[in-house]
Order: sequence, then structure tokens, then C-alpha cells
Amino acid sequence: MHIEVLLTGNEIMSGDTVDSNSSKIAHHLSKLGLIIKRKVTVGDDQKLLENELKEMTSQADLIIMNGGLGPTVDDLTAEVVASVANVKLVEHSEAIQHLNDWCSKRNLSVNRANYKQAMLPENCDILANPIGSAVGFIVQIGECTLMCTPGVPGELVPMLDIIVERLNEKNVYSGSKILRLQTFGMGESTAQQLINDKIESWPDEVSLGFRASLPQLEIKLTISEKKHLSALLSCKEMVCELLGAHVIGEGETRLAEEVLKLLSEKKATLTTVESCTGGLIASMLTKESGASKAFHSGLVVYSDEMKKKLLNISQETIESEGAVSESVVREMAHNALSMCSANYVIAVTGIAGPEGGTKEKPVGTVWLCWGTEQNLKSCCLFWPLERTLFQTLIAASGLDLIRRHINNLDPLPNYLMQKVID
Amino acid sequence: MHIEVLLTGNEIMSGDTVDSNSSKIAHHLSKLGLIIKRKVTVGDDQKLLENELKEMTSQADLIIMNGGLGPTVDDLTAEVVASVANVKLVEHSEAIQHLNDWCSKRNLSVNRANYKQAMLPENCDILANPIGSAVGFIVQIGECTLMCTPGVPGELVPMLDIIVERLNEKNVYSGSKILRLQTFGMGESTAQQLINDKIESWPDEVSLGFRASLPQLEIKLTISEKKHLSALLSCKEMVCELLGAHVIGEGETRLAEEVLKLLSEKKATLTTVESCTGGLIASMLTKESGASKAFHSGLVVYSDEMKKKLLNISQETIESEGAVSESVVREMAHNALSMCSANYVIAVTGIAGPEGGTKEKPVGTVWLCWGTEQNLKSCCLFWPLERTLFQTLIAASGLDLIRRHINNLDPLPNYLMQKVID
Repeated sequence: MHIEVLLTGNEIMSGDTVDSNSSKIAHHLSKLGLIIKRKVTVGDDQKLLENELKEMTSQADLIIMNGGLGPTVDDLTAEVVASVANVKLVEHSEAIQHLNDWCSKRNLSVNRANYKQAMLPENCDILANPIGSAVGFIVQIGECTLMCTPGVPGELVPMLDIIVERLNEKNVYSGSKILRLQTFGMGESTAQQLINDKIESWPDEVSLGFRASLPQLEIKLTISEKKHLSALLSCKEMVCELLGAHVIGEGETRLAEEVLKLLSEKKATLTTVESCTGGLIASMLTKESGASKAFHSGLVVYSDEMKKKLLNISQETIESEGAVSESVVREMAHNALSMCSANYVIAVTGIAGPEGGTKEKPVGTVWLCWGTEQNLKSCCLFWPLERTLFQTLIAASGLDLIRRHINNLDPLPNYLMQKVID
Repeated sequence: MHIEVLLTGNEIMSGDTVDSNSSKIAHHLSKLGLIIKRKVTVGDDQKLLENELKEMTSQADLIIMNGGLGPTVDDLTAEVVASVANVKLVEHSEAIQHLNDWCSKRNLSVNRANYKQAMLPENCDILANPIGSAVGFIVQIGECTLMCTPGVPGELVPMLDIIVERLNEKNVYSGSKILRLQTFGMGESTAQQLINDKIESWPDEVSLGFRASLPQLEIKLTISEKKHLSALLSCKEMVCELLGAHVIGEGETRLAEEVLKLLSEKKATLTTVESCTGGLIASMLTKESGASKAFHSGLVVYSDEMKKKLLNISQETIESEGAVSESVVREMAHNALSMCSANYVIAVTGIAGPEGGTKEKPVGTVWLCWGTEQNLKSCCLFWPLERTLFQTLIAASGLDLIRRHINNLDPLPNYLMQKVID
């Protein structure tokens, strides 16, 4: 089934609104294994819309059009569709009924602008709008089915449920299936190269995709028909074996979520003591609901003074080795464990930049320390990246190192350039 | 100038990624008064991409192509462009140099997959990528200039700055001008209504737009010709007067950035002590470069135990009034000020949910306390929102309250439901 999407809206073209609707449309269609082939966006311009729609109807089996159903002058969808379908715009009784009901429920009187929303292409089918005043509609143009949906995201979603139901009745389900693996610590090119080099007999029916969604890399395996399920599962196994401990989990698993799960299973707690990541690790953990089971407190010690005052790091160590050093990160970890009465710790001290670098310790240098009182490990990384990217990757590395530690995972992650010190 | 955008990416077509890049492209071009006429998105499919690109080059003066520059097999942009431009793909020395520099900075060896990124259409111009390994490039196809940019958002933005500069040199500036005001604490509809009701003589030549970019709301004023500059400036003044202290600043000003600026001007420091926001306020502050001038440390006290142990909050107060109470938030603020030797403090304790609510204190209840040792204020908010949205808005409120405090701003922000207690 060849599916295209046509979006209209000046606010999308200007960039003032980020279009999240087409992602919702794609996700809903994917429940039936349907894939969108092409997506076009233009502003609220009748000529432009007609041109695009004409081209689309000549090649697509199904078009989802989104936006332009409202009451204002720049809402053009009904007019455009009537023109391309070569039918009249007529007052649609079902739409009038909906409008009256909608207004009376809200103690509003129907105004002229509202009635515009009930002027629809002749002989169209109505798509109910459980939320807003404007109904959607379906028009058949030649071989092509055109479904017109509202631009307001909250109104679109319930209408998509109706659309999926309607399509499902037509038995369009293709049997496709998607499997996602979340990984950390390996770049897209490294992962791709590894798979290319090591898996010789990759089956054609399983397509391989990558999605860098910082700090994680998602690996996506897709089949288009049910009968390839065993090939899909064997590919998953091969990839998991190859990438080993770089795989965090399946589906949408986030690093912080996984770390909290592992801690909860052990009924253990984790504390964080952060310099250059400035609270980001704590924030990643506490974004997860239920974080309080395993995370009770964390410290942000950003200045040298506060490392001394809050954490009791010795003046001597800071003076002799500097705040970004193995001795300091180990003292931070050690002292935080007892201050915060936690079982596990992640400690970070580094130079996020753009200022603060020296010749010996340039921007991007960072010491991490993690583990338990009895078993603290540390390592130095050098990642000279833009400030917030650096913070994001270092915070994720801290979480990843704890994940590996708890799971006794080996070998070392790909991103560790220097040997870990026990 | 007829401008089109061509986006490629299976992850966009599948809806796994919401395309925010085209919004960034539109925003950057709007600095020169340029408007995108049409935007097409297709998956990583050579045939589809070639078809779209051919059609675009026949009608557009400028095409921005986005995505598909990476090292993997589904990165097809260079090949597609070479095919449509009818030139060969060749190893580009500048791109090789960039790749080698990029890898050596990171102690990585260049692998075969990487080299793919240096295979570019013959005679193309390079667009530097200050962040990633893949350069962008410019190709002239007939009358049409085609600029190819990376799909990773963090890499796209600095390249767009370069593109705007290049276009600016060509004098494409139409004379339009955009003025942005960053605000916090007032919803889009409230702001719109206020402006409609109070500013009677709004000039036609100044268009008014809103962009919710959580936690802030951006108000955008646009003129299409230079001669309307004075109207633009007078509109800005009217809006600023009307919204008063809800305006944080012009341009891209972020709340944390503004707070740090105010603190630096006073040579003062701020500490944070967070329960339900779990380090997010500290993280927002430390994402700003130069944060260390005014932010030296912060505490995340997530559990009751840790409020007692780390912060010395009395057992009695927690037992009698609960951890989410005025007494506790005031003790938190007071004790953090002395522990962290800071001039100003933001303290937060609340229930982010989805669990942990009670009848008296449902999910969404939160106490904030802010100010100096001599002048601590507190207030209770009730925002029953989804967890991360709640955290984002509460963290921003904390920063906003300190901003107002330092600036002696009055009246109270729109979002404060209850009276502030001195």
C-alpha cells in the first residue's frame, strides 16, 4: 500500500511549530505494519496545496492530509479537496449535527465561522472528532483514498484510532514487525562496521537501521512479513552477541531506567557526586518514576572550595594533583558513599569547557569513579566536545559504568580509552 | 527566492524521530527574511530521493537537504546528489583532512565506514562541521544551489550559522526583521488575549506569533520590510510593558542564563537544594558555560532520611508536617545556605508522581523557597502534570522566582496561585 502524507500550516513552514503530527500518524499506521512513503509540507496556500494533492492522488493508494480543517480563512483543506476531486462543497448534515452538539455542550452559540467547518466535499464520509468542533472526512479520488484530519494534536490522536480501526477492517495488516535494541558506548559507524564484518550471512528479509538518539544508539531490525519472524529473532541474537555489553536492553529502555531496575533488584542504593556534569546524572535518574526506591540523594560540588567544605576533600590533594585527578575523584566517591549512606556511587570531575582547560588537562578531560566501598574503579576519559554534548555523554557513561559494574559485564566498553584502575 | 527543503531518514518516516531539524532550518533562514515554500520528506531510498531532488532542482533556487551524510549504508545523500548533478563521487581532500583531524583528536583510528563520508560529488564546496565527523557540502545544479547538511541536530545548528553567513554575503536579505521576546509564567492563550484586549492600535505591518518552547514561551514580532522598523520597536515596547516581569529577555535568552548573569553582576552565589526536581535546577544552571562563577554547589535530597542526615532537617518537622511542607522547605533553604556558603538559594520539595500522592497532598503539590538568609520567601504550587513536564516547569519556576527576587520585580508572576509568604 503506497501511503503519502500532506501537511498544511504556515506555522510549520516558519518553524514556529515543530510537526509532531506526522510522527503520530506514522506510529498509528505502523500498528498495521503500514509505512509512509513520502511526506510533503506546504503553507496555507490554495494553489500549492492543489498541486501537491493532484500529484499525490495520481500515485498513492492512501493519503492522510493533516491540518486546515478549522474555521478561519487560512483553513483551506475542504476547498482544496473539493477542487481536486472535482465536486461541490455542500453543507454536510452530520457535520452540522456535530457542530450543534459540540457548541450546546459548551453553552456556546454556533457562529458563522463555525459553519464553515461543516461545508465539506459532496458525498464525503465523516470521521468523528471526539474532542474538537471540526470533523474529519474521507473522499475517494479515483484509486486513491484521501483522509483529512485536524492539525490540533489532541484532536488528531483519537481520530487516528478511528482511522486505524477502519483500515484494519479492510485487512491491510502486512505482518511487518519491528525489534529495537538500545545500546550505549559504540558509535553508529563502529556498530555498522562490526555487523558488516562479522555477520556474513545477514538475511535479506531483515532490514537493519540505526538511530542516534543521544546519548544512546538504537538498532532497529524490521521484517515486512510475519513469515520472517525466525530470521528476525536470529538476527537479534547475532547482534546482541556481537555488541555484547553495549546492549542496554530492548524496546525503549533508557540507561537510567535500567540502572534503577538493577539497583531495585538488589535492594541497593546509588548516590551521585558530580562536578562537571553539574547534577545531570541525578536529574536523569530522578526523571524516571519510582527513582526514590534506589536513589536517595546526590551532591553537586562544582567549585574546589565546595569539594573541600561539603565533601571534605583534602586541600593537599587538590593542590598537588588538581581537582580533575584520580585522587580527587576517588576521595569524592569514597566520602559521598559514607555521607549519603549509599551502596553504589558515581563520581565525576572534569573540564566541560569552553574555559578552564590547561595544557596538561585540556577541555574534555574527565575522571570517573564508580562502584562500592569495597570495589571502587576509576578511569580517565578525554572527550573534547561541545559543553552540553560532553555533559550528556559523560553522565550517560557514569550510568553505563555502574550498569556494567552491577552486572559484572566484560569486556570494557568501547569508549574507554584508558585502562580502568581497580 | 524559491526555497525548498528535502529531508531524508527512515526514522522520520517511521515516526520514531520527530523532525525538529526543519524548524531549525526555517528559523535560521528567517534571520535573512527567507521563507521555505515546500518541504518533502522521504525514507532512505535512492530512487525516491533522486526523484524528489530532480523535481526540486527544476523549480527551486535553493534547496537545503538534510540527513544521510553519515557513514552507514542507509546514508545516501552524496550518491543521490552526484547522480542528479551527473558528476562522479570522488575522495574530497578537505573532507579527508577533517575526518583525520576529527578521529585523531579523539584517539580513534579512521575506519572504512568513516571514509565513506569523504566520498563527495566532484567539485563540491565544503560546509565545515565543527562537531561531527561528516562535513556538509554545496553543489550547483543548473540554476539551483543545493546545500547538504547533517541530520544530527547538534551538528546541524552550527552549520546553519555558516549557511546563513554565506547567504548573507550574497545579499539575499529581504529587509524583513524578527524580534523575539522570551517569557515565562504566562500561557499562550493568556498572553494572546491580553495583547488583543489591551493593545488597541496594533499595526497591520507587525505580525505577532507565539512559540511554546517549554518551559518558556517565545513571542515573535515580524516585519517584512525595513521601513516598518519603528512600528516593530513600538510593538515590542507595548508588549514588554503589558507582560511586565514575565519577559525574561530578548533573542534566545534562557532563564538559567539570565539568573547567572544577574548573580555575576552582583558577584553573588546561588545554591540549590532539590527534592522532586532531583538535580534538574543544578543541571540547567551548569549547562550554561561560565556557571562556575555563581554556582558552586547544590544538593539533591530525595528521601526523608537524607533530608535529615545531609541537611539536618528535624525529624519532628518531617513527622508533624510532612516532607512536602512550608516548614521543611524553609529549613532546607536555610540549612543549604550555610552548608553551601551561598548568598542565594532555591529549595524545592514536592510530589512529582505518578505515585506518592495523598488526599491532602496530591501529586503535583510542591513547596518552593527562595531568596537570601535575611529574606527568604516561600510558596506552594499545585501543578498536577505528567512527571517530567512537572519537573521542567517547577525547576524553571525556581529559577524565575530567583530572577524576580534579585531584580525586585513585581507584581507576582501569573502562575503563583497562592500568596507568597515572607
